[in-house]
Amino acid sequence: MTFRQDHLLGIEPLAPDEITSILDLADDYVALSRSPDKHVETLRGLTQINMFFENSTRTQASFELAGKRLGADVMNMGLAASSIKKGETLIDTAMTLNAMQPDLLVVRHPHSGAVDLLAQKVNCAVLNAGDGRHEHPTQALLDALTIRRKKGRLHRLSIAICGDIAHSRVARSNLILLGKMENRLRLVGPPTLMPAGINELGCEVYEDMAEGLRDVDVVMMLRLQKERMDGGFIPSEREYHHLYGLDADKLSHASPDAIVMHPGPMNRGVEIDGTLADDINRSVIQEQVEMGVAVRMAAMDLLARNLRDRRAAA
Amino acid sequence: MTFRQDHLLGIEPLAPDEITSILDLADDYVALSRSPDKHVETLRGLTQINMFFENSTRTQASFELAGKRLGADVMNMGLAASSIKKGETLIDTAMTLNAMQPDLLVVRHPHSGAVDLLAQKVNCAVLNAGDGRHEHPTQALLDALTIRRKKGRLHRLSIAICGDIAHSRVARSNLILLGKMENRLRLVGPPTLMPAGINELGCEVYEDMAEGLRDVDVVMMLRLQKERMDGGFIPSEREYHHLYGLDADKLSHASPDAIVMHPGPMNRGVEIDGTLADDINRSVIQEQVEMGVAVRMAAMDLLARNLRDRRAAA
Amino acid sequence: MTFRQDHLLGIEPLAPDEITSILDLADDYVALSRSPDKHVETLRGLTQINMFFENSTRTQASFELAGKRLGADVMNMGLAASSIKKGETLIDTAMTLNAMQPDLLVVRHPHSGAVDLLAQKVNCAVLNAGDGRHEHPTQALLDALTIRRKKGRLHRLSIAICGDIAHSRVARSNLILLGKMENRLRLVGPPTLMPAGINELGCEVYEDMAEGLRDVDVVMMLRLQKERMDGGFIPSEREYHHLYGLDADKLSHASPDAIVMHPGPMNRGVEIDGTLADDINRSVIQEQVEMGVAVRMAAMDLLARNLRDRRAAA
Repeated sequence: MTFRQDHLLGIEPLAPDEITSILDLADDYVALSRSPDKHVETLRGLTQINMFFENSTRTQASFELAGKRLGADVMNMGLAASSIKKGETLIDTAMTLNAMQPDLLVVRHPHSGAVDLLAQKVNCAVLNAGDGRHEHPTQALLDALTIRRKKGRLHRLSIAICGDIAHSRVARSNLILLGKMENRLRLVGPPTLMPAGINELGCEVYEDMAEGLRDVDVVMMLRLQKERMDGGFIPSEREYHHLYGLDADKLSHASPDAIVMHPGPMNRGVEIDGTLADDINRSVIQEQVEMGVAVRMAAMDLLARNLRDRRAAA
Repeated sequence: MTFRQDHLLGIEPLAPDEITSILDLADDYVALSRSPDKHVETLRGLTQINMFFENSTRTQASFELAGKRLGADVMNMGLAASSIKKGETLIDTAMTLNAMQPDLLVVRHPHSGAVDLLAQKVNCAVLNAGDGRHEHPTQALLDALTIRRKKGRLHRLSIAICGDIAHSRVARSNLILLGKMENRLRLVGPPTLMPAGINELGCEVYEDMAEGLRDVDVVMMLRLQKERMDGGFIPSEREYHHLYGLDADKLSHASPDAIVMHPGPMNRGVEIDGTLADDINRSVIQEQVEMGVAVRMAAMDLLARNLRDRRAAA
Repeated sequence: MTFRQDHLLGIEPLAPDEITSILDLADDYVALSRSPDKHVETLRGLTQINMFFENSTRTQASFELAGKRLGADVMNMGLAASSIKKGETLIDTAMTLNAMQPDLLVVRHPHSGAVDLLAQKVNCAVLNAGDGRHEHPTQALLDALTIRRKKGRLHRLSIAICGDIAHSRVARSNLILLGKMENRLRLVGPPTLMPAGINELGCEVYEDMAEGLRDVDVVMMLRLQKERMDGGFIPSEREYHHLYGLDADKLSHASPDAIVMHPGPMNRGVEIDGTLADDINRSVIQEQVEMGVAVRMAAMDLLARNLRDRRAAA
């Protein structure tokens, strides 16, 4: 195992061998979670706090189960609507929780960079569960694990990321990870939903789905992030589905064994056709959710090892 | 122990010997919960997810404590107000959670039949914690356990179910269970709160409380489900209490050792007089709550045994 | 260890040797929470229910972590917005939870005296986590532990409690505790925020911060409880900060090694200057949070010992 990080704030700081270590260990945790006894004591004696400043039923559930299966004492803080009302700042809230001696702090926050800032203030391992439009590293890692298990490798694949790329931290973390692992990346979507500085990303950019999906191995759809669109172009759902929603017809341009991914929750009939989403020969959307728990177990396990080593050395 | 079920979706599919098995095992769990150490490891290694699409502080708490005392990893999902907003369907939500490899899924949903539908989609044991006006099996089981312990038997008793029967899944599950165990059942309430097809249920029906309660062994009051009454007759609370609210006077028509039950939460002064509710010589309302935890422990234990057997055989 | 209580309802009923016992045991739990394995099985087999009828992210989190680290089965009930809507009374809710056989019941309630009332109805140990303007005993205990560790003793200190004393259960519990331990107490604040009967408390009372803080060893700031001010004088935040907000200038009147305390959450720039709050040479605000978990572990441990003894004797 090679993993040198104190925190998991993004994919950006990770070297390819570190990514591989997380995925290898996650494979073990997939097997564990499918076994008759899915509880181990790896994190026994440690405290995990989930600080969600933005609601996310799925991601919080995934981290919560990961920690409980590893034997940690797990506490959820639904902060979206709570003490912040009383006028406390992000840093005060974080410092307060830090004083309660957690070992693992899982943080989601609506502002890009908030999790990095917080990691500088606390003395435990911080995991970014999504910050603004910045990064969502465990999503990229679970996507990578899903691809590696389905395609048998995680390099030299042709992968199309489609839809609302501008507002998506999922796209951003995936671009970084899949780029580090030396894949051919395409971005497909309307120019209005492409991020600024797109040409410097080193990806091929397509406006047309048929062209963009031609012969790709992986089609990664994104959620339309209406909640993050502040003014500007908002397509009608019907129009968007017609042009960019994935269906059997558009998918026919991809490689015959291309897999279809979506980070969820899906807007059926908008980004993706419902029948295709449920087609277990093409869609790996349920596998992504399963891999999510395993990847989070692996990341927390590795961070806890480093934390224990640092403390023992101190 | 005789219990052949993969799920606990209702009382309807249960044979009398299966009901007896649950109650026998629940008796053991009552003893455990009263002992100095009320934590065992029966469900250790298993994951229980409570999916409540409708708020229910009491029922969720009862299932949560049951799972924790049995050593499961327990996670609550308050779904009434969450990801569903993002446009996800019931089935998508269920499939997502199913992908996280739970072993026991406890589901409450406002629509009748929703839990049955969900059970067909997942590969774990599903427990119905109340679906629309359909069934609420653990409530009927806890009522049965309470009666059996107080009356020494669960057959050939004369039992009156009183009040808002039309809107009550509690009444429905109880009617089925108590009928299977060969009791004499009476329904007492205003005709407007009686379900359609009442004559086919094989119960005696009364409009008058004095007549309906005459010589019964058990008086089972129901909650007035105002939240489920869509238009139609809504009695004033005062009028309702005068005619159908249980008090010492109305209870005097029942057998001298008749017990008084209510599934909670009570509307004191509406369905039941507050003094009577607190009379520990007649009211078994607190016992019902205690039996609730024990019955849920027993049901989850039996379902987990079958689940483990099925998986070992697969 | 000397601790004769069945409940922890307030500081009022505690003798000095009982306070000392809690603090001594809490010192051990501080060490445990800083160690590599912060999970023990002291409360294994017991059930802790946190009943919060008033939101409090911090206090609930502190009690939750305390119970989980001690190995209890812990359940949170967010009751501020739940079943109470259905018309259930406080006592019905408490009796319902009591029927689920908890061993430790942690209760916060907006009404003074509600927790005492509840403790008379249940047969487990009750901890008051704050009731109206009455008491908040674990806050006073954590403040005492913080002072004792920083100052080396908990008697014959000169301590100023400053700000909104009238609306503060924190002030009330601290006054009682620090008085019992024979310290010199001063109350500093505008007359409109002083409680009735102030002269009978045996404290020195000051309107002016410079005078009130002169040579004190401990400066204890209070949160401005706007939510509890019903009409009457509400100062502007700016005016309040000018006269009563703690900053380096006002603190200069205190002893050179005086410590600064605040129960949180802080209104930075109102009760306290942000720079001073973060000054680790003076401010012990983070230590207070850490001591909170330890003091709650100690209180629950001691109450559980007495509960087990009572039950074994019964």
